[in-house]
Amino acid sequence: MRKTLISIAAAAAALCAGAAQAQFAKPEDAIKYRQSAMYLMFTHLGRLGATAKGAVPFDAATVQNNAMILEQLAQLPWQAFGPGTDTGANTRALPAIWTNNAKFVETSKRLQLEAAKLSNAAKTGDLAQVKTAFGGVAQVCKACHDDFRKD
Amino acid sequence: MRKTLISIAAAAAALCAGAAQAQFAKPEDAIKYRQSAMYLMFTHLGRLGATAKGAVPFDAATVQNNAMILEQLAQLPWQAFGPGTDTGANTRALPAIWTNNAKFVETSKRLQLEAAKLSNAAKTGDLAQVKTAFGGVAQVCKACHDDFRKD
Repeated sequence: MRKTLISIAAAAAALCAGAAQAQFAKPEDAIKYRQSAMYLMFTHLGRLGATAKGAVPFDAATVQNNAMILEQLAQLPWQAFGPGTDTGANTRALPAIWTNNAKFVETSKRLQLEAAKLSNAAKTGDLAQVKTAFGGVAQVCKACHDDFRKD
Repeated sequence: MRKTLISIAAAAAALCAGAAQAQFAKPEDAIKYRQSAMYLMFTHLGRLGATAKGAVPFDAATVQNNAMILEQLAQLPWQAFGPGTDTGANTRALPAIWTNNAKFVETSKRLQLEAAKLSNAAKTGDLAQVKTAFGGVAQVCKACHDDFRKD
């Protein structure tokens, strides 16, 4: 019974993974997609970081806008890490993404949660809250890159 | 008086353009940013197009999700076409973007409007409305690429 359940779960997971992969015609399309999403995130996170570190003056509306965009973008890359997308173009993605996929997925969900928190913090217009929430996002970025991205 | 007003407007526009450009440390960063945003838009538009053309079965939730993402992404690329970003990396951007900037800006706003219409159409769950609205987006894409992008 247990084995059957596991088999069903595995089959369902394979189906889902297949569906996700089918969204991209070729592995290089998926790699380009996730790298594009990451670059946009990197840009908006960089702008938020400049404010969090005091390098640019705090402008509540600008911070709110960047945080909202980051929250939206943080949902995108993960669909493009389907099976078979570990090669096909230059990529710094480590095999652990697929061999330890549960942890990778959990980390990706954590980023989305922290990005939502940052967006909420930005809406308060309170720089101290923005700084704290920015730290939460930055920590997940680093943790994920440490485990799942080539140096 | 008229000349003074125009001078003030020009100075204000230059300031705004400067601020937009200052968001990117180097022209190649802006070029990479806008190309990344365009690639994500292209991907989600492609998925919507596959449904609009009947190549994949209509799934209302999937269409709604892709249309919402497209609407969000459609706001991003334009900030990265600041003055001085016509060169610095491989780009198909034509000089008309800067010599006929008013038309370019107007077209970019039209895309955002059509993408919002598509997102609203998707929320109805009615394929006919999605098809019509998809046509509106595709037309603006083509018009803008005809005028402002190298073949």
